[in-house]
Amino acid sequence: MTQRAYNFSAGPAVLPESVLAQVQQEMMALPGPRASILEISHRSPTFKEIIGAAETNVRKLLEVPDNYEVLFLQGGGRLQFSMIPMNLLTNEKKSADYVLTGSWGKHALKEAVKAGDMNVAWDGSDQRYTSLPTNDQLALTPAAAYVHITSNETIQGVQFPNEPEVGSLPLVCDASSDFMYKPLPIERYGLIYACAQKNLGPAGVTIVVIRKDLLQRSSDTLPIYLNYRIHAEEGSLMNTAPTFAIYVVRLVTDWLLDEIGGLEKMAALNRSKAKMLYEVVDQSEGFYTGHAQPDCRSVMNVVFTLPSDDLTAAFLAQAKECNLTDLAGHRSVGGIRASIYNAMPLAGVEALRDFMVKFQRANQ
Amino acid sequence: MTQRAYNFSAGPAVLPESVLAQVQQEMMALPGPRASILEISHRSPTFKEIIGAAETNVRKLLEVPDNYEVLFLQGGGRLQFSMIPMNLLTNEKKSADYVLTGSWGKHALKEAVKAGDMNVAWDGSDQRYTSLPTNDQLALTPAAAYVHITSNETIQGVQFPNEPEVGSLPLVCDASSDFMYKPLPIERYGLIYACAQKNLGPAGVTIVVIRKDLLQRSSDTLPIYLNYRIHAEEGSLMNTAPTFAIYVVRLVTDWLLDEIGGLEKMAALNRSKAKMLYEVVDQSEGFYTGHAQPDCRSVMNVVFTLPSDDLTAAFLAQAKECNLTDLAGHRSVGGIRASIYNAMPLAGVEALRDFMVKFQRANQ
Repeated sequence: MTQRAYNFSAGPAVLPESVLAQVQQEMMALPGPRASILEISHRSPTFKEIIGAAETNVRKLLEVPDNYEVLFLQGGGRLQFSMIPMNLLTNEKKSADYVLTGSWGKHALKEAVKAGDMNVAWDGSDQRYTSLPTNDQLALTPAAAYVHITSNETIQGVQFPNEPEVGSLPLVCDASSDFMYKPLPIERYGLIYACAQKNLGPAGVTIVVIRKDLLQRSSDTLPIYLNYRIHAEEGSLMNTAPTFAIYVVRLVTDWLLDEIGGLEKMAALNRSKAKMLYEVVDQSEGFYTGHAQPDCRSVMNVVFTLPSDDLTAAFLAQAKECNLTDLAGHRSVGGIRASIYNAMPLAGVEALRDFMVKFQRANQ
Repeated sequence: MTQRAYNFSAGPAVLPESVLAQVQQEMMALPGPRASILEISHRSPTFKEIIGAAETNVRKLLEVPDNYEVLFLQGGGRLQFSMIPMNLLTNEKKSADYVLTGSWGKHALKEAVKAGDMNVAWDGSDQRYTSLPTNDQLALTPAAAYVHITSNETIQGVQFPNEPEVGSLPLVCDASSDFMYKPLPIERYGLIYACAQKNLGPAGVTIVVIRKDLLQRSSDTLPIYLNYRIHAEEGSLMNTAPTFAIYVVRLVTDWLLDEIGGLEKMAALNRSKAKMLYEVVDQSEGFYTGHAQPDCRSVMNVVFTLPSDDLTAAFLAQAKECNLTDLAGHRSVGGIRASIYNAMPLAGVEALRDFMVKFQRANQ
């Protein structure tokens, strides 16, 4: 078998090895239908059991209240950027507030302005998206249809440690890159969405958790695939669901429940992994420079730079030789980005930590 | 290993066993990245090679001319029902013509009327969608933005043997359930689209082949995920593509090229499979009644009824015991639907034929 690398890709990203092994083992045929998960109808009893279990797992892990729907959709975060304003703006509430803490929030806003006049409630671009707003820095609009945030900015490595205070406005959150990294107070959200390919499964499915009263805003004139209310009414089976991706989400959430032991334990593990790398940065006396300010450093994406482009290139090449891959930072920030999502094992982070220490010693 | 059934599901549907075996074999890690196909970035060299090979295969199999783009999108046929009018209607061409030969054409029209006033060029509902229009029965509009057809109606088992004549109007075709069942004169189409889960791969990716000049109709005001021009400019990698589904499409098209030997050979095999079942229907002296008229019978979905609901139930139960599964007709037509897509092996169709003959003898 091909040796597996420690893969620090920002997404699609590492999955639990036990999940991959189960996918492999069941690939030719599931026992009930005697057909592969790739070949069975989305309306078959076997698949309905799978999507039901995936939803139950999500509800259990996040303690999702009954007045929320859990949807499984296609199109990634990008389609959500459009679906959110198309569904949630109304004749009375024609605009929404956007909090920009990095590149993904800006992308979300770019789509939203096609649907209405949007208000930027805060923009961290002055500080190159290294910081977060305090609650009193948010310029919220009392009549806003919703307030949009990005809980974790993968490119800048900036993460909200807690939800900002938005009063009675529905908080809408792009949690694509940190969903289920810790328990969440779902009742504080109007809508929270996450594409699967960071913490939950393969690319091709996006989870949307939406408060049921907000579904009444979806107009019948919307394109059917873009209508949250119809997806909710049809249990995410209005059309052929991305069956395989949902099957993997079910296995990953099984792993979170049964192997990890829930989101409190996942959060503790994630924090210890992140601490391990930020400590090397902080003790490097300027050899490694963290991008985000310490109080909003991401637990998922550890972003830092080296003293020169040559050293960055050497770091990446030598890391790869040590079986540590996909560590290049996004071109807009440069440097190194170590994505250490839920499924990145502790051993992978320890190996990266040891490599960072050795690399500094050799190159200082 | 679980024994595999002959799975006649209308979709998601049977895949070549050799493809499943390769997916299984490579699941834990691809040699280059030393990570699973589920874990690698859509922008990695390995995935770019995969999506490039998938596109090259599609172009080779269908002899796609250079003035066409091949796109890999999410959202299934349903999202195409909306994207087509949203992209192809213009200020000058505000309506399009729809040819209704079954349930899926009606669904497509239902979405199109949200984007403009549509013209029904022909509607086979009077005959319960058992027939096709002749060219001179089509009430086409000279100023139409396009003409939409459904090449194969899976529910009714009605298929166009050849493209209808639409003059210089762009022909737009939902080929979801028969794409690549035979060679196609792509130059006769403006746009042809197909979700993968019948003939091409797992659910979660939709192939769109579009003539390049039509891309100029896509307005910048469209939601980014719904804009064909942007997907074309970005080589289907504007956002995270459904990497695994595209990987399987690559393997299925490899199989069509290398194991089947191209679409002429695939077509001959498909025709002989369909003939085998229709002959049993025609020689049954009314025990089995075909739904579609003989001149427009589908080569992909063989739809027929039995003399009573009790016999239908007995047929389904006994077939399942013989390892022949997923044969129930759609509730709107009833009876039996045997979907015999590209990957259904000859042996499966022979087994079904033998079962049909025996069942008739025992129950007449």
